[in-house]
Amino acid sequence: MKKCVTFGEIMLRLATPGYQRFEQSNSFEATFGGGEANVAVSLANFGLDAAFVTTLPANDIADSAIKELLGLGVDTSFINRGGERIGIYFLEAGASQRASKVVYDRAHSSVSTADATSYDWKKIFEGASWFHWTGITPALGDKAAEATLEAAKTAKEMGLTVSCDLNFRKKLWTPEKANEVMSELVKYVDVCIGNEEDAEKVFGIKAGTTDVTSGHLDHEHYISVARKLIEKFPNLKKVSITLRESISASRNGWAAMIYADDMPTFSRKYDITIVDRVGGGDSFAGGLIYGMMAGKNDEDALNYAVAASCLKHTISGDYNRVSVEEVERLAGGDASGRVQR
Amino acid sequence: MKKCVTFGEIMLRLATPGYQRFEQSNSFEATFGGGEANVAVSLANFGLDAAFVTTLPANDIADSAIKELLGLGVDTSFINRGGERIGIYFLEAGASQRASKVVYDRAHSSVSTADATSYDWKKIFEGASWFHWTGITPALGDKAAEATLEAAKTAKEMGLTVSCDLNFRKKLWTPEKANEVMSELVKYVDVCIGNEEDAEKVFGIKAGTTDVTSGHLDHEHYISVARKLIEKFPNLKKVSITLRESISASRNGWAAMIYADDMPTFSRKYDITIVDRVGGGDSFAGGLIYGMMAGKNDEDALNYAVAASCLKHTISGDYNRVSVEEVERLAGGDASGRVQR
Amino acid sequence: MKKCVTFGEIMLRLATPGYQRFEQSNSFEATFGGGEANVAVSLANFGLDAAFVTTLPANDIADSAIKELLGLGVDTSFINRGGERIGIYFLEAGASQRASKVVYDRAHSSVSTADATSYDWKKIFEGASWFHWTGITPALGDKAAEATLEAAKTAKEMGLTVSCDLNFRKKLWTPEKANEVMSELVKYVDVCIGNEEDAEKVFGIKAGTTDVTSGHLDHEHYISVARKLIEKFPNLKKVSITLRESISASRNGWAAMIYADDMPTFSRKYDITIVDRVGGGDSFAGGLIYGMMAGKNDEDALNYAVAASCLKHTISGDYNRVSVEEVERLAGGDASGRVQR
Amino acid sequence: MKKCVTFGEIMLRLATPGYQRFEQSNSFEATFGGGEANVAVSLANFGLDAAFVTTLPANDIADSAIKELLGLGVDTSFINRGGERIGIYFLEAGASQRASKVVYDRAHSSVSTADATSYDWKKIFEGASWFHWTGITPALGDKAAEATLEAAKTAKEMGLTVSCDLNFRKKLWTPEKANEVMSELVKYVDVCIGNEEDAEKVFGIKAGTTDVTSGHLDHEHYISVARKLIEKFPNLKKVSITLRESISASRNGWAAMIYADDMPTFSRKYDITIVDRVGGGDSFAGGLIYGMMAGKNDEDALNYAVAASCLKHTISGDYNRVSVEEVERLAGGDASGRVQR
Amino acid sequence: MKKCVTFGEIMLRLATPGYQRFEQSNSFEATFGGGEANVAVSLANFGLDAAFVTTLPANDIADSAIKELLGLGVDTSFINRGGERIGIYFLEAGASQRASKVVYDRAHSSVSTADATSYDWKKIFEGASWFHWTGITPALGDKAAEATLEAAKTAKEMGLTVSCDLNFRKKLWTPEKANEVMSELVKYVDVCIGNEEDAEKVFGIKAGTTDVTSGHLDHEHYISVARKLIEKFPNLKKVSITLRESISASRNGWAAMIYADDMPTFSRKYDITIVDRVGGGDSFAGGLIYGMMAGKNDEDALNYAVAASCLKHTISGDYNRVSVEEVERLAGGDASGRVQR
Amino acid sequence: MKKCVTFGEIMLRLATPGYQRFEQSNSFEATFGGGEANVAVSLANFGLDAAFVTTLPANDIADSAIKELLGLGVDTSFINRGGERIGIYFLEAGASQRASKVVYDRAHSSVSTADATSYDWKKIFEGASWFHWTGITPALGDKAAEATLEAAKTAKEMGLTVSCDLNFRKKLWTPEKANEVMSELVKYVDVCIGNEEDAEKVFGIKAGTTDVTSGHLDHEHYISVARKLIEKFPNLKKVSITLRESISASRNGWAAMIYADDMPTFSRKYDITIVDRVGGGDSFAGGLIYGMMAGKNDEDALNYAVAASCLKHTISGDYNRVSVEEVERLAGGDASGRVQR
Repeated sequence: MKKCVTFGEIMLRLATPGYQRFEQSNSFEATFGGGEANVAVSLANFGLDAAFVTTLPANDIADSAIKELLGLGVDTSFINRGGERIGIYFLEAGASQRASKVVYDRAHSSVSTADATSYDWKKIFEGASWFHWTGITPALGDKAAEATLEAAKTAKEMGLTVSCDLNFRKKLWTPEKANEVMSELVKYVDVCIGNEEDAEKVFGIKAGTTDVTSGHLDHEHYISVARKLIEKFPNLKKVSITLRESISASRNGWAAMIYADDMPTFSRKYDITIVDRVGGGDSFAGGLIYGMMAGKNDEDALNYAVAASCLKHTISGDYNRVSVEEVERLAGGDASGRVQR
Repeated sequence: MKKCVTFGEIMLRLATPGYQRFEQSNSFEATFGGGEANVAVSLANFGLDAAFVTTLPANDIADSAIKELLGLGVDTSFINRGGERIGIYFLEAGASQRASKVVYDRAHSSVSTADATSYDWKKIFEGASWFHWTGITPALGDKAAEATLEAAKTAKEMGLTVSCDLNFRKKLWTPEKANEVMSELVKYVDVCIGNEEDAEKVFGIKAGTTDVTSGHLDHEHYISVARKLIEKFPNLKKVSITLRESISASRNGWAAMIYADDMPTFSRKYDITIVDRVGGGDSFAGGLIYGMMAGKNDEDALNYAVAASCLKHTISGDYNRVSVEEVERLAGGDASGRVQR
Repeated sequence: MKKCVTFGEIMLRLATPGYQRFEQSNSFEATFGGGEANVAVSLANFGLDAAFVTTLPANDIADSAIKELLGLGVDTSFINRGGERIGIYFLEAGASQRASKVVYDRAHSSVSTADATSYDWKKIFEGASWFHWTGITPALGDKAAEATLEAAKTAKEMGLTVSCDLNFRKKLWTPEKANEVMSELVKYVDVCIGNEEDAEKVFGIKAGTTDVTSGHLDHEHYISVARKLIEKFPNLKKVSITLRESISASRNGWAAMIYADDMPTFSRKYDITIVDRVGGGDSFAGGLIYGMMAGKNDEDALNYAVAASCLKHTISGDYNRVSVEEVERLAGGDASGRVQR
Repeated sequence: MKKCVTFGEIMLRLATPGYQRFEQSNSFEATFGGGEANVAVSLANFGLDAAFVTTLPANDIADSAIKELLGLGVDTSFINRGGERIGIYFLEAGASQRASKVVYDRAHSSVSTADATSYDWKKIFEGASWFHWTGITPALGDKAAEATLEAAKTAKEMGLTVSCDLNFRKKLWTPEKANEVMSELVKYVDVCIGNEEDAEKVFGIKAGTTDVTSGHLDHEHYISVARKLIEKFPNLKKVSITLRESISASRNGWAAMIYADDMPTFSRKYDITIVDRVGGGDSFAGGLIYGMMAGKNDEDALNYAVAASCLKHTISGDYNRVSVEEVERLAGGDASGRVQR
Repeated sequence: MKKCVTFGEIMLRLATPGYQRFEQSNSFEATFGGGEANVAVSLANFGLDAAFVTTLPANDIADSAIKELLGLGVDTSFINRGGERIGIYFLEAGASQRASKVVYDRAHSSVSTADATSYDWKKIFEGASWFHWTGITPALGDKAAEATLEAAKTAKEMGLTVSCDLNFRKKLWTPEKANEVMSELVKYVDVCIGNEEDAEKVFGIKAGTTDVTSGHLDHEHYISVARKLIEKFPNLKKVSITLRESISASRNGWAAMIYADDMPTFSRKYDITIVDRVGGGDSFAGGLIYGMMAGKNDEDALNYAVAASCLKHTISGDYNRVSVEEVERLAGGDASGRVQR
Repeated sequence: MKKCVTFGEIMLRLATPGYQRFEQSNSFEATFGGGEANVAVSLANFGLDAAFVTTLPANDIADSAIKELLGLGVDTSFINRGGERIGIYFLEAGASQRASKVVYDRAHSSVSTADATSYDWKKIFEGASWFHWTGITPALGDKAAEATLEAAKTAKEMGLTVSCDLNFRKKLWTPEKANEVMSELVKYVDVCIGNEEDAEKVFGIKAGTTDVTSGHLDHEHYISVARKLIEKFPNLKKVSITLRESISASRNGWAAMIYADDMPTFSRKYDITIVDRVGGGDSFAGGLIYGMMAGKNDEDALNYAVAASCLKHTISGDYNRVSVEEVERLAGGDASGRVQR
């Protein structure tokens, strides 16, 4: 069985129930998630070996995060324990024209303060063929950025495929800082995933005048973004861009493109009634990596990734709890949602 | 007050809350339901006398099923107690492109193992004018099939109208077995209800190339299915076919046709935002039987049935908890959903 | 900071969870609300001084109502304590074609039996620049109508702007009685808010043949309603009419018009996926009053009000828990519902 | 099967979850209950025919009350529909030294405003051998008192045994009024149930200096109370007095005495860890009536009643949901609470 | 790290919330548990390698059972998939004098119908030093009994220590059948655990007249039971008997004895306020096995086991979710329950 | 109305529901609390003016904390906004022999990083007569300690009474550091509150050999502790020591002593069944301060404080939501917990 390693931050996710606003709620639904952990869970669900690497404090809350990952089949044996705290994010689910709201409380988390030298990447990558990280990890701070670089370099040296989801987070760093750090990191990447906004914020790559809030998309723009990324980073073998039409917080259009060998491929597009939007991008990355690791061609991998990620939007929590069979059924064309009995 | 008897299996329904997947949930919403019990509840809610006949074990869980039926006004005095267990079905509600999922745990249930001779149909049908059963009951096993046949024959002898909802369940029996058993049973039926798939799976009657997952429907096809059913079973006075457009697990188109006296009648069509899809077909049967027992003409009975069943999709649980007044208001044209205050 | 006073009834709101029907539920979500309290909460959320005036019994349930208002920043120091009970309304949320249902249990409430003389309006209006009431308050009974009249007169004398939301409630009084009482009261109003049905039921003003359940609206009709209102009450400086398209209980179109200085202005229209419909009209009034008190022009105030009220439909409970920043963002054009992180 | 009729008020019971105070809770657990309905449910659970007579408004909330009774096997066919509202009581469960708190909102209820002539007692008592009422019913108002008198007289004329639980409620009437009304009513009673406080408040019968809050009880006092009651009402065949030691809101001692034929009999005493204290007295009455109707001697009936009522304290809600078998097992000596598996 | 293997049935446990009776509840708390799985979880929590062996059907419900075990660190790699269903037990928690109630729905479960030859015990026991089973496993049916015998024999041959908890279940088999089957099985046991009732029901060993419901215990009786067991099965190296005083469903006394080398040792006794009683015995077995595997002497192992099991009574669900540190602290004398902060 | 100011940290409290362990729970009950905020809430509930001073970040979670305080009548106008985060504590409620567990995540909180100069104590203390702080505030860090010193000095200068609850927290600082900082701070205190452990840990004052986990208390020891405190800090006018007997996590004995004018006074002692133990000490301080501000003598104030705090143990959450009337009733001797209706 093929193995993929992901590296980043896992947070306690505290979400208000239903559509309650923060001020209304006297309880939180408590789960865990984070871009890279989410990808690891996707891959484990799809039957691959997946290890998630991070640093977590030695307390009961972090224990729960690890137990949940264990139960989902993720290898947690390379998670270091130490530091002060597990990051937290508070989530208030939006609906219709009201946007979902995230309040971060992730500063000083164990993974952001852990020394770059605390991870033994050679040992971690033993037996692995893929390494995935996202732009959130280096944004956590200089130590985390250093660790990411060390990891990416080691992965390349050891012959792993390296993928990166750009994932720009404006509350974590500025575009300037992101540009500086990511420009070095993306040199060690084979497969780059992102959306239009990521490319612009991180690398100043503009796709023109498309108004992403209006519901209109323009294929040419996305192709141009992909081309510019590859021009800037010739090491990139494939660039994949997700195309979200934000009709409202309750309904999104969802599709993606992959660009490889000078060829763009566009996926089928889904009209999604949203249950939980968070983790949507990660589920795309998880689907794409699975598709490629499973040996699918670009189009099939892309359609698998978009279908996987479409299904994620119907599942509460960060993790995409779906099986290969379910994704294949949707990618194969049955989007009817008929009762399985 | 007119009386209808239904016969079949009632199960404990264990549904995960919200849109949680089975693996996410540490609780189940516990209600009861089953095709024939659902019809009895519909009729009781509409003000008719309705008796539900089955066999249930002598334990607290079955007691709860009976108490719920009692509270809904259903006559439970012909429910036998005995056997090992009450059937269970687990339900995970789907959303958008993710289908709802049903896990059956109904083997060895009391009703499936009860002797055909344990029901005194002559006594049960005393004072009744209608008998309703569905294709699920004979699918439970040979004893249940035998009991159904005995019931249908007795009902016909005693002058009751007999209705049957084909309700093919592939997890309970094969098309071959269904064909064999149902071919004998449907001879004692006056009103036959089903959808396109039922007719095909049970009797090999095909409606052509219509793709039910694509959202397109073809009136001619449905008429042809009805005609073929009547050709095969000349005893059928009316055939009614439900027309579901599965746009997604969150949204369905819903309409129906009735065919009688060589005349098809098509109902109004509803665009439904789904709360709970399970029991949708049963609520149609309940509405149709009510309409006919209440003396409506075919068109009115059909539109009543479709409206009743449209409302069912907005109510959680198997049972259709609506009043005649509510159904009539919708059938009368007010689908605006404006607050009643 | 500018101050607005509202006067009316606040009720205990007992809503079944999810989409449960009354007979299904063994619990109620308990919050508080009422047309005029809802407006006060909107204004407090928008940063204005807002006082809510009413009479509540001296018991723990009424204490909770007051504590909730206090926590939302509403001035409760003019709430009298006395009388027998706090009014209650039971709410069953509809979905799709099934309408929401309200059962009132508000007779004999403290505010409906309090003497008109129990309020010291001169003291209450000290420092205030706006007084708002709705047609529900005088409908509570003669004493409440008398108090409303006294309040409106005093407000006018003291130079406050007076606004009124017509809010006809057929379960509280007849159109005849409403006409008689409101005809006197509206003489002391500067800004009149209502929908087509209110104008017709209270003042017999018809907007023609538009079928509000069909989803079609006609601008001319609304203009004609506004003109007729101003003809009847020349004291009215502005008339604002809300335009709801009731597509279903799950989806509404929502827009509004303001008519002033012989000029109609129509707002942007929103296509809303509904979380909680109750309090929608009040949130419009709250937005409009805020807009005017904040010095916006008619168009901006109207668009602010419609955006505020659009957001209300996504929030459970009567109160519109949104900030000026959130309303401005939507009114400014971003209806994409993209995650804020 | 023997039949008992009870007459009184059933209320919507709105209880905060867990041990939450009113101000903390944003939901209520909604059930139904009331002294006389509670007795009817006890008897139906014990397998007797039990009818509950009252007047309820024609709305959904009252429908739910009736459906729950139906599901519990109570005959609701003599419940009149009309009037304004169903009474409500709010309940906050105490713990340890904090007392439970009840807020009544029962004024103007349908049963309190219904005409005495609206009940056809001759028809209601057909086939019945027992009539039970409590001191709460006449306390609801003159009309209800008149109806109670009419009922009690008719019952005596028709040869039924009449029982009464004194149940003094200081928030419903004064001791003076209670004395006046009850003195007439108790003339038609055979079996009188009460506690020390009831006897004192209603009839001024004092049991001396026992401090019921201190945990000490004095048998002689209770005997003296019973004797004085029988002296005052020579028609009383049996007097039964419950003996509650209020150690705290979480723990009570519980026993009772029956006095008949100049002989006191004291029951076994239970040390109870309390789950729900409300309805405890009613479950005693239900147990005693069952015991007598089932032909037990005084001692057995008393011990059955105390055991039934001990079990009630472990069940949430007003109703005592236990079987004869469970009561007999406890009355027979097994109070170990060992798992039944 | 030492490894222990357990073999038996894991069931879906459906418990009503709070103290609700079955008929009151419309939801179930869904967890998993069973005597032997519970022991495996205890051992994994204490840091040992623990594998649980069983057969489960290939459906989502069984998947959830396995994922939960995985998350708790139990080795599930020897769980076979096949058969019809996972066993279920319904639980209604008692309180005070009302006993907890268990309704079994475990017939036809996969583990009870799996062939004895479907387990490869040699492979399973590789690297293990301990094998634990309970009297429930052979009670599931002849196939399960045969598998247990095969396992026990193989374990002895491979040099493992074998422990058995007698665990008589009267709903699964008769004392006669139990005697017959267990008499053969216990020959391959080193450590036998049970309570007084087990010894009597399975082997007819009576401890005299002690009334276990009265709260009195007699040390001599327990010693005599242990001696008789060893006389009957000279292969037994240690016999441990748990001493439960069932004061009520809310409060138990709890202690135990171990008898080895002709020497009885009695543990400290705890006065327990019960949160969840089910799994109490299993947590004792888990503690005792841990103590012995960790090299403690009999007294220390016994006190560890009783402390572990005392803590289990405070944790909801079958599994004993406590750490070695927590058990040692209690066994070391701190039963104060002071907040750890 | 008299006014008291308190200063310290308010945290988000995330508690698992029921008795769930951290690893079991997928939700948290979210409330707010902290030693000094808890005292402010007690005083506001008792009808005094109470202001709580702290620094909170500018985010929605902190907004909720403030809104809750506002709703409870606490003056929040001196709460500064800034810094990174609101402190969090996770709580797992213990039962019986299992202790409650607190996991702190309060490092880097806004109040711990706020400059001492950011509070304008002269303005804050205007109109106030009492200032209360606890040993937790200076333990948060040097800046907070500095601010506390500045506040205490200013309070003394302005003639306020200053009270301090020693509240040693071993996870926040060492006994050495506490001794150093507190020795300076307590010089500005009039009323000192603590328990035996606080006095020992902070000032090395030992009360001898009393074993607080054994349930035995020794009056002489407490008197000696109080005397030694006053010897060390002659400025102390009164010393009050709480006496908790930790029988188990479910049951505590609770009493207190006050020492003033060379005279010890001991309170009544309560045997408490615990609902929520956290905040128990704060509710004692709140009761004592109220008693003194309300002009009670030492004995009455002490008994009021112990009764208030006894009631707190029955209320979930940090805050003591009780009224003066309820406390007086208990202090007056009625601990029976009889239903108030």
